[in-house]
Amino acid sequence: MRTILLLGAGRSASSLLKYLIDHAPEQEWRVTVAERAIAHVRELTRGHDDVATPVELDATHAEARAALIAKHDLVISMLPAFMHMDVLKDCLRLKKNVITPSYVPDALWPLDAEFRKAGLTVLNEMGVDPGIDHMSAMRILDALRAKGARMEAFESYCGGLVAPESDDNPWGYKFSWNPRNVVLAGQGTAARYIHDGELKYIPYHTLYQRTTRVELPGLGGFDGYANRDSLKYREIYGISGIPTMKRGTLRKGGFCEAWDAFVQLGCTEDGYAMELPADATWAEYLRSFLPENATGRDVRSATAQYLGLDPEGAVMERLDWLELFGNGTIGKAGLTPAATLQRLLEQKWELGPNDKDMLVMWHRFRYALEGRSREIHAALVVKGLDTTYTAMARTVGLPMGIGAKLLLNGKISERGVLLPLKPELYDPILDELATLGIAFTEKVVAV
Amino acid sequence: MRTILLLGAGRSASSLLKYLIDHAPEQEWRVTVAERAIAHVRELTRGHDDVATPVELDATHAEARAALIAKHDLVISMLPAFMHMDVLKDCLRLKKNVITPSYVPDALWPLDAEFRKAGLTVLNEMGVDPGIDHMSAMRILDALRAKGARMEAFESYCGGLVAPESDDNPWGYKFSWNPRNVVLAGQGTAARYIHDGELKYIPYHTLYQRTTRVELPGLGGFDGYANRDSLKYREIYGISGIPTMKRGTLRKGGFCEAWDAFVQLGCTEDGYAMELPADATWAEYLRSFLPENATGRDVRSATAQYLGLDPEGAVMERLDWLELFGNGTIGKAGLTPAATLQRLLEQKWELGPNDKDMLVMWHRFRYALEGRSREIHAALVVKGLDTTYTAMARTVGLPMGIGAKLLLNGKISERGVLLPLKPELYDPILDELATLGIAFTEKVVAV
Repeated sequence: MRTILLLGAGRSASSLLKYLIDHAPEQEWRVTVAERAIAHVRELTRGHDDVATPVELDATHAEARAALIAKHDLVISMLPAFMHMDVLKDCLRLKKNVITPSYVPDALWPLDAEFRKAGLTVLNEMGVDPGIDHMSAMRILDALRAKGARMEAFESYCGGLVAPESDDNPWGYKFSWNPRNVVLAGQGTAARYIHDGELKYIPYHTLYQRTTRVELPGLGGFDGYANRDSLKYREIYGISGIPTMKRGTLRKGGFCEAWDAFVQLGCTEDGYAMELPADATWAEYLRSFLPENATGRDVRSATAQYLGLDPEGAVMERLDWLELFGNGTIGKAGLTPAATLQRLLEQKWELGPNDKDMLVMWHRFRYALEGRSREIHAALVVKGLDTTYTAMARTVGLPMGIGAKLLLNGKISERGVLLPLKPELYDPILDELATLGIAFTEKVVAV
Repeated sequence: MRTILLLGAGRSASSLLKYLIDHAPEQEWRVTVAERAIAHVRELTRGHDDVATPVELDATHAEARAALIAKHDLVISMLPAFMHMDVLKDCLRLKKNVITPSYVPDALWPLDAEFRKAGLTVLNEMGVDPGIDHMSAMRILDALRAKGARMEAFESYCGGLVAPESDDNPWGYKFSWNPRNVVLAGQGTAARYIHDGELKYIPYHTLYQRTTRVELPGLGGFDGYANRDSLKYREIYGISGIPTMKRGTLRKGGFCEAWDAFVQLGCTEDGYAMELPADATWAEYLRSFLPENATGRDVRSATAQYLGLDPEGAVMERLDWLELFGNGTIGKAGLTPAATLQRLLEQKWELGPNDKDMLVMWHRFRYALEGRSREIHAALVVKGLDTTYTAMARTVGLPMGIGAKLLLNGKISERGVLLPLKPELYDPILDELATLGIAFTEKVVAV
């Protein structure tokens, strides 16, 4: 009997937990689920007391955390990023393998040699983005390299969206992921990429203007805005000399243009508390971002004029739909502009009880082979089963579940700090994901 | 014999040091000047060994610093802001009065009661901005209040500039202050003010577009951009209910419009290192901020087109003057966009050996008195004597020198953490500054 400790089980842990429960008889493992807010975990494990045990844990409590880790064979950590290093150091000290969906913290690389020496494996970036993006890109890149292709361009976009059948608002968006991260997306540094050998930097305030159009058959048009740092993936993917490399985030067509209105006004800023009272209206909220000499009959027309928008156009229609020009009140004083806006969006963009989310990933590879340039377009579209087993929960959780199986069964030979970049990881994971309905479609296009 | 310790003596300490030396015989005090880079201090104190002693000190060395503080009656700290709290805690422990030109650190207010209990005075914000701005504003506000006036508006602008006789570039600007602070000015949070009772927030990326025009007789037009937080001064100045309150920074007319080009491109960002090599040209630097599909015969026309600028207009003329479109190289790799730009500006905007700088401060008060609204406009224009005794050094240093005299002679009755907001401070300081040629002109305007 093997034992797995799942640390942190928020909404997106549902599919991972189901995978671990479903495979418990065949794999002869048991799962302990340690979470602070444990009510929904009890619902997910109900009827499976023989294989899954919820435990209430404040993971910042170092002793309790270490005591739990010590009792298990494998740790899967879905704790918030700021807690990662503490858990990883516990695992090194207590000699446990560990899997996480999170980016490798900078402070982890220096421990790589120690993990290797201890014969341990740390599987990082094992979710969807980062995770499935790495695996699917590397499988195609390795295959092209094996044929002798020279890479000319790689672009990759991913977005957590709402399924078309549940898309009933003009933004084409509902929250399937941390709303705060969506509101703050792109802030803090410029987006960096390279295009035809030229380094490119996009400051935040133009990020949602400088988008790339992506058309997906049957799903229509999407706009991709650039992710923070596309440059470092050149080395990680072994394509250091590639002239074009860009990663980004997908939104339904039109979303970025409308979101840009918030960016231009300053509504997404998170560095200061607003002085508006709780009973200030949304119109007053908007007016605080307009110059005092802004002209217009009312806040709506002043906003349109200040931003240079057609008053009857699609952007204003999206702002209207949020009821930003009405007499609804912001409801809470002392928040940042971003946190104030987030409160409104959480009501408007809530994934309803009958809604389904959708995850879309799209890669474009351009390469030269035998004197000709071609492109491979690879697309992944995953819809949620319901509001528990969402596309987000499935694509984040299932690669980790499969990774846990590989690790416990001794199928992973590499030790140390790993990303899923090699065939011994990406082949079995992508193959099993395909059996679960998570599969890319690929086409080759002559250019 | 009284003893004064001047901690930190960069370029802007020259006038303070001269004041302390000049007044040493009459005031019977001696000065120790503790500085890490001590060569220029030796020049300033040459011939005054009897009253001024340079001491080499790394002020981050806590023991050496405390040992020096213990031996003096009064401490004047011009150290960088991050070192302030350490010095202030030393002074509390060692029972020394202290003067600084810096903003009160948030962590200082909780120590107010302890300073009072120890009978000590901490005089903060004793330079020009903050410093003379507070003193001159409070003198006028107190006088208006004494007459029963109701305040309707207060706006205040200050700028460290170049004197007209030394102004030989189209930006109308040379560095008389820390270049890094000039390049990064306004970043990190929105500018906040209130206008006719409406709170206003300006995000950084529109800060240099939303300027206020200020005309000064004989000096021409200036543009003021809003400072970070004008709102908190309502309470500090005792005008909490005032409907309009705005503080800002002055630049020569046209500067802000041209600087905005850098902001729009992203050239002032300081959060990431650029990947450009040291021999990249300024044209390549600019091109990295343009979209790959930017059109134009060359970088210059592509920049003008992307920013919506007239290729033959004043903004492009200013960018041309900086030789940004030429083949000059950035010279150093691995810097942030802002630090890269700063290297160029330090060459171009250097205050030459025969140049004079100029400090301009302008207040506008609107008030109702006896049923009528009037305005007071108060203007301060100070020119540097030379490149050592600059307007910046004089206006930052002399209020501290006078403050030191008042404190050592027991003329300041208040204890604890102070700003120069009360007559016992602002009256003698402003009066003596006037004898030194630092005087406001005032006029009353009917509105």
